[in-house]
Amino acid sequence: MRPPERPAPAVTVLAGGYGAARLLQGLVTVCDPASVTAVVNCGDDMVLGGLHISPDLDTVTYCLAGELNPETGWGLRDESWRARETLRRLGGPSWFALGDRDLGTHLYRTQRLAEGAPLSLVTAELTDRWDVGARLLPVTDDRLRTRVTIADGTEDNGRGTGGEIGFQEYFVGLAHAVAVRSVRFAGAERARPAPGVLNAIAEANTVLIAPSNPIVSIGPLLALHEVRRAVMGRREQTVAISPIVAGAALRGPAARLMAELGHEPSAVGVARIYAPVAGTLVIDEQDAALAPAVEAEGMRCVVAASIMHTPAHAATLGRTALAAAGRAEPARR
Amino acid sequence: MRPPERPAPAVTVLAGGYGAARLLQGLVTVCDPASVTAVVNCGDDMVLGGLHISPDLDTVTYCLAGELNPETGWGLRDESWRARETLRRLGGPSWFALGDRDLGTHLYRTQRLAEGAPLSLVTAELTDRWDVGARLLPVTDDRLRTRVTIADGTEDNGRGTGGEIGFQEYFVGLAHAVAVRSVRFAGAERARPAPGVLNAIAEANTVLIAPSNPIVSIGPLLALHEVRRAVMGRREQTVAISPIVAGAALRGPAARLMAELGHEPSAVGVARIYAPVAGTLVIDEQDAALAPAVEAEGMRCVVAASIMHTPAHAATLGRTALAAAGRAEPARR
Repeated sequence: MRPPERPAPAVTVLAGGYGAARLLQGLVTVCDPASVTAVVNCGDDMVLGGLHISPDLDTVTYCLAGELNPETGWGLRDESWRARETLRRLGGPSWFALGDRDLGTHLYRTQRLAEGAPLSLVTAELTDRWDVGARLLPVTDDRLRTRVTIADGTEDNGRGTGGEIGFQEYFVGLAHAVAVRSVRFAGAERARPAPGVLNAIAEANTVLIAPSNPIVSIGPLLALHEVRRAVMGRREQTVAISPIVAGAALRGPAARLMAELGHEPSAVGVARIYAPVAGTLVIDEQDAALAPAVEAEGMRCVVAASIMHTPAHAATLGRTALAAAGRAEPARR
Repeated sequence: MRPPERPAPAVTVLAGGYGAARLLQGLVTVCDPASVTAVVNCGDDMVLGGLHISPDLDTVTYCLAGELNPETGWGLRDESWRARETLRRLGGPSWFALGDRDLGTHLYRTQRLAEGAPLSLVTAELTDRWDVGARLLPVTDDRLRTRVTIADGTEDNGRGTGGEIGFQEYFVGLAHAVAVRSVRFAGAERARPAPGVLNAIAEANTVLIAPSNPIVSIGPLLALHEVRRAVMGRREQTVAISPIVAGAALRGPAARLMAELGHEPSAVGVARIYAPVAGTLVIDEQDAALAPAVEAEGMRCVVAASIMHTPAHAATLGRTALAAAGRAEPARR
């Protein structure tokens, strides 16, 4: 499914779901899409009703295909919900929204995996069929599952109190409205990076860490020892973009999760997480005053407008991040 | 899911898909639905795109729920096909029509089976939620798969020539437009009847064999040694309805399949198949002249209008079949 010749990788993006999808949507307008590789989280993957669902891969795919539902930020535009209506009537697991169009993707992926195709090959097939110009690689073809231990005594909509649950049960089923005690990435110690992942990191001119949740979106990628070591080896060419702006996440539970797990929910807290792997952090203009504190963590700090209101903003942010990496290199000579 | 008290079983129907569904639709208007049990073929079951699909159970369920698509005779009425459109766009297995509403049933079943529920329990849950008054039992909770060997040199739409394929690949994928060399029921030697099946046969006042395909719809049921022995034990109370009228099946490949496998494609051929297990055969008025030949096979023959143009015709046929069983008993005294 891979085109026989690709340009040298200009940029490799460590990616979660929505924030990464938006950044990539901008990047492919400022780089040759064929020179852009996204290494995507698959720790959120799950099996529901027998179907293998890869939420972050799908969000990035649909966004780059121009098919992402703009209202929800996940799933396909122009979606219908008839399968889910039946499932709800039958008392089945309807907490995870499976759209009718979207189901075609899950059916395709599940069928191919059952036939023995690795997730990376299925992803190449899907992105080809959805006309995604960039290359998407799941971080691994092996089983990797983000598991969340929620605090005892938590109101959890009847799903049992405390204990460890799958990421989507936490994120979607409980709408991440519960206190988290710990997060782990089951399978990370044995999972091998998918074919192409290590090369994409080693050979890119620039490695970007998308403004995704550092703990549950980027965390699963860096939990693979070989991936973490590869990114550390490119630290000077690696630019992270803070997903925390003015102490809050633009979307999702990143700030709350950071605080609950002992991190400062700020661009400085993000710098502490990424300092070992990235030489540069892009923070938002609203956080300009934090630049010295970020630099005190050992990262170069670039202040920029980082909120991607439109694809044009995303393109500007992509250009800024690539330029930041360009600036980083002379500093090392 | 089972109501705590049920009336004594008035009638147990050995059932395939459409023909059985129509007969049952009539029967529940002439008996208390709660006293009707259908033992349903699940040799046609398959896994596609990760989903466990039970075509005959679904056809009977949807028909008794008043939800069967009247134009196709399978699937749900008021159906849409958006998942299938995506699957087709992606190049996935779109030969089997998965409707959007219908997908909810498959997702529910697959999820429950993955949780460890046996198919009979899942079927009880589904029929309860779809408001089916009769009791539906899959013939077995174990794996039973109808396998079809198609003849060499057959035009088979590019799916390879000759060799053994799954029933749905033959029936739907190849539109049963290929010559069949043999049929077998993989798993039948080890499969145990589902809970309730043997009692439903032993305790019913009447056992009916629906006008389903004798080879690939009723065949899988009788391939279970214990089921066949149970029905043989009720031979005098067992009434089969011929699915072959004037040498042809009203629907599907029964006549062609019978001929290819060495049976006479007529009511007499049906009598030869069922004579060991059923004391009576109902044949259509058009075949009245065959009654002596049927009786020569050792079955009582009842001639009746057997084509179920409407639910009212089906009710009349049901009444006829029950009366035939009633008539059979005095003959034994």
